[in-house]
Amino acid sequence: MLQTINANYETFLQQFKDRARLLITCPDQQGIVAKVSKFLYEHGANIVQSDQYSTDPAGGTFFMRVEFDLPDIVMKKEELEKDFHHIANSFQMKWKFSYMSHVKRMAIFVSKQDHCLLDLLWRYQSGDFLCEIPLVISNHPDLQKTVESLGIPYYFIPVNKENKREAEQKQLELLQKYQIDFVVLARYMQILSPEFIRHYQYNIINIHHSFLPAFVGARPYERAYDRGVKIIGATSHYVTENLDEGPIIEQGVKEVNHRYNVEDLKRVGRTIERDVLARAVQLHLEDRVIVYENKTIVF
Amino acid sequence: MLQTINANYETFLQQFKDRARLLITCPDQQGIVAKVSKFLYEHGANIVQSDQYSTDPAGGTFFMRVEFDLPDIVMKKEELEKDFHHIANSFQMKWKFSYMSHVKRMAIFVSKQDHCLLDLLWRYQSGDFLCEIPLVISNHPDLQKTVESLGIPYYFIPVNKENKREAEQKQLELLQKYQIDFVVLARYMQILSPEFIRHYQYNIINIHHSFLPAFVGARPYERAYDRGVKIIGATSHYVTENLDEGPIIEQGVKEVNHRYNVEDLKRVGRTIERDVLARAVQLHLEDRVIVYENKTIVF
Amino acid sequence: MLQTINANYETFLQQFKDRARLLITCPDQQGIVAKVSKFLYEHGANIVQSDQYSTDPAGGTFFMRVEFDLPDIVMKKEELEKDFHHIANSFQMKWKFSYMSHVKRMAIFVSKQDHCLLDLLWRYQSGDFLCEIPLVISNHPDLQKTVESLGIPYYFIPVNKENKREAEQKQLELLQKYQIDFVVLARYMQILSPEFIRHYQYNIINIHHSFLPAFVGARPYERAYDRGVKIIGATSHYVTENLDEGPIIEQGVKEVNHRYNVEDLKRVGRTIERDVLARAVQLHLEDRVIVYENKTIVF
Amino acid sequence: MLQTINANYETFLQQFKDRARLLITCPDQQGIVAKVSKFLYEHGANIVQSDQYSTDPAGGTFFMRVEFDLPDIVMKKEELEKDFHHIANSFQMKWKFSYMSHVKRMAIFVSKQDHCLLDLLWRYQSGDFLCEIPLVISNHPDLQKTVESLGIPYYFIPVNKENKREAEQKQLELLQKYQIDFVVLARYMQILSPEFIRHYQYNIINIHHSFLPAFVGARPYERAYDRGVKIIGATSHYVTENLDEGPIIEQGVKEVNHRYNVEDLKRVGRTIERDVLARAVQLHLEDRVIVYENKTIVF
Repeated sequence: MLQTINANYETFLQQFKDRARLLITCPDQQGIVAKVSKFLYEHGANIVQSDQYSTDPAGGTFFMRVEFDLPDIVMKKEELEKDFHHIANSFQMKWKFSYMSHVKRMAIFVSKQDHCLLDLLWRYQSGDFLCEIPLVISNHPDLQKTVESLGIPYYFIPVNKENKREAEQKQLELLQKYQIDFVVLARYMQILSPEFIRHYQYNIINIHHSFLPAFVGARPYERAYDRGVKIIGATSHYVTENLDEGPIIEQGVKEVNHRYNVEDLKRVGRTIERDVLARAVQLHLEDRVIVYENKTIVF
Repeated sequence: MLQTINANYETFLQQFKDRARLLITCPDQQGIVAKVSKFLYEHGANIVQSDQYSTDPAGGTFFMRVEFDLPDIVMKKEELEKDFHHIANSFQMKWKFSYMSHVKRMAIFVSKQDHCLLDLLWRYQSGDFLCEIPLVISNHPDLQKTVESLGIPYYFIPVNKENKREAEQKQLELLQKYQIDFVVLARYMQILSPEFIRHYQYNIINIHHSFLPAFVGARPYERAYDRGVKIIGATSHYVTENLDEGPIIEQGVKEVNHRYNVEDLKRVGRTIERDVLARAVQLHLEDRVIVYENKTIVF
Repeated sequence: MLQTINANYETFLQQFKDRARLLITCPDQQGIVAKVSKFLYEHGANIVQSDQYSTDPAGGTFFMRVEFDLPDIVMKKEELEKDFHHIANSFQMKWKFSYMSHVKRMAIFVSKQDHCLLDLLWRYQSGDFLCEIPLVISNHPDLQKTVESLGIPYYFIPVNKENKREAEQKQLELLQKYQIDFVVLARYMQILSPEFIRHYQYNIINIHHSFLPAFVGARPYERAYDRGVKIIGATSHYVTENLDEGPIIEQGVKEVNHRYNVEDLKRVGRTIERDVLARAVQLHLEDRVIVYENKTIVF
Repeated sequence: MLQTINANYETFLQQFKDRARLLITCPDQQGIVAKVSKFLYEHGANIVQSDQYSTDPAGGTFFMRVEFDLPDIVMKKEELEKDFHHIANSFQMKWKFSYMSHVKRMAIFVSKQDHCLLDLLWRYQSGDFLCEIPLVISNHPDLQKTVESLGIPYYFIPVNKENKREAEQKQLELLQKYQIDFVVLARYMQILSPEFIRHYQYNIINIHHSFLPAFVGARPYERAYDRGVKIIGATSHYVTENLDEGPIIEQGVKEVNHRYNVEDLKRVGRTIERDVLARAVQLHLEDRVIVYENKTIVF
């Protein structure tokens, strides 16, 4: 139903081919910002945005995200990263350059519900999301036509207790084949194994249909109804081995009242879920999220 | 610091001396609304507002709140209630008339923190709350001057493990002496005994400093910080024997981010707490809350 | 891209074929609720929900919405309405019965932007909206494929200064041919003539991309950007002869900051617009909106 | 009614006596961040937070706020500023250092309504606001006792058409005498003259009781009621010569419905106003606001 891809997309990529982001985590010390910005300046970069945060200026952990333009960066990547090694080592940095010339490749996992999937596809098509969606994987055939009508391959891989390991093996092969950078669980109702998660650490984004940590686990809307809450919510987080306990990226809420039965909560919840998931994916696409001690710094 | 009571208050009471509210809970059946509204009409009442809700029109539970004016109702109360008995019995109703000529008498319990107390007192003085506040009880002396400067008696009753029973005894005596209708725990950091609660069933309103059911119990802001949530909240509920599990009246939330340390969460949280508690008290004062199966219907 | 219509839809209609709503506006007097509920009771109806509001119990205007079940109502409609005439006249009522057995027929007008259209179609398909969408009309061909892939006819009627009157004539003929009950302007960027509007008084719902009455007229996001507002919004209202001044049904907002350029405001705005419009349509479908003196009572 | 000042206040000031903020506005060019951070590093500063924004990296306007610790900064201020001149000139900067060792001195102007005043005083006393409040000025005597009970001088200066110039003269003398840094109009219902405003450019904070630019001018709640809006709001902005058109610092909103009469809107509005004003004052106190072309960058 969606149209062919936004014509501005290519223009956009052309415009930002020289842009990159640098993410840093390290022990806080004096002079980090000065060193990093001097380094970028001397390499011909123009800083477009710079954010930093420290858990404690006196000996805490320091986080930084710098977005910058550097002409012909594609050809200078290796040199840039090699040169940065010296600074990085002297400050004991964990660091990563991310280049907008590499368009991130996102796989979507889905079950039967379509609202999160449709919203992700709409944002992809409208040009809001700068990414590729090379494939959709599902444990149900229901959404095949929807996805394929957009020219995106749809892989139906049934999952049950017996075949879970093999199913995940197939999924991983597909992700590798399509060179997937990160995975979005758009109401994919299966629990992934620790082995699977390890392949995409902090690169699997889930949407949980409650305001975590309230209603961890199954049937959150039913439990919200039983508890009589006056606000419901949704939570997008990175998937870790502990169900619904990964680092929270984004949350959203909406007021409800006693007139909302479980179906009403689900209906309202769907609009929260799709919005929260889309915002989390947007933040991830823009390299705005740093994970630290099971929490996120969102710049 | 607050000024003397709003001059419009008396005028207001005069204006609404003939107003009453009728609250009903009963098995749903055909004809309830017709019977009740006919009854009121025949007794000379003019219905000002009427709300109803049914968990299931086919055999569920029915709730109704009617607000009406009835000239000289004060003198007709007994007759009205006696007459209503027949209808009530035929529908197996739990019911209650509440008359605005009786100004509700609210006791505030407080510990050391002043933000909820100050907000309640301000709303009382500004005429937003139509109630009397005959006394404030605290387990600390800190807020005595604040309260007494308004001409409200302040009772300092220390509470510890050893004297808890006696302390509650003293509190109950005071509540009785001052003919208190309901109690507001404005960040009163003590757990009340089941015996105490039984004296004021669904008439003790607490503010919990989290978005329940997340972070039940102590130190919710610290735990919200540790979990890295992106939204914090507060919950006002009736106190029952199970800590933080009573029927929720009202909830509120605010967005936060990684820059908020525990102190920041507490600071932002204070403004949520006072607003949520004030809204809950307002709803209670206007007889808008019906409790059913540990949930609230809020009309 | 959306799937074929929800299977529960038919079941749902079957379940609610006996349900109806009665909307009333009249001068406030004693006994209205009693009379109306007695009338319904005596005709065998079971009241499911009842809401009322009075601008002033002493001589203001009274509004009422009653939702009720009445077995075999389809066959009793004429009698019911005839009988009700007596009550209606005695209270000088404006009144309307609305029967759920008649599924409302909604036409969507659209230009080039797809976000509101897609959201309406998704809610229609997912069964959230109980309505028919017999056609979509547009002054651009862009969204034809999207709409037709769902089996909904798409009429491309170009509009310019010269042909406006004829274009509207064609539109009106189509609306008549398809027996349309109400029209939704899903970011249809044309101003309708007073003649057109008169045919569908309070039955044309528009979404304006600002928080009215701020930024009436064209280019609201550009003007919001220039003014430096910290919150943007959208407003759904009934269309009247005065541009953007019709009765407001629903509004929504979102926080923004200096980092949002005009494109960002539009992007965020799109998610507000679609949500607000969908909520307004839902309220209209459920006969919850009464217009009075260019304002809405929303029950 | 409020208690004596928070004991932690002094401790807090002691802790932050070496902290300062640098605010910069200049044409965007390469190397600004590098130069500024190198400068601070070489002067022994540790950057605690750094924010920047550019209207357009290719030739727009650049804004920066750096918060840093520099041991014994009080004794090094002059040297620091002198040294910074060279950088500032080469980049054509508008710039300002702000030292936390100088506690900002805030004057509050008030008329009769107390809600904003009380909230500011509470935040001051609770230690949320790091500032001094040396005086309150009012055109009415009503709030004298409230203010003086906290040991804050209260100046009652009546204002009318005839004496406006003299009244402002008196006010300005007081502000000078008490060395006031900025003025907060806490629902002060008088329009200040351009002459007055010029003395405190972008240092007078007003709270307007509507969601600007909707309902500029008088009686916004009455007009919101007449228009039938579903959301009301408040706006805090710097005062300029054009009434209600100064740069917006902060806005807040709340949902309402047809049941809210004008008094209800005012009641709900009061809680929005006090929250929005307090947040704006907090941002100003922390030097987070830069004004540019009648808009604010809020870091």
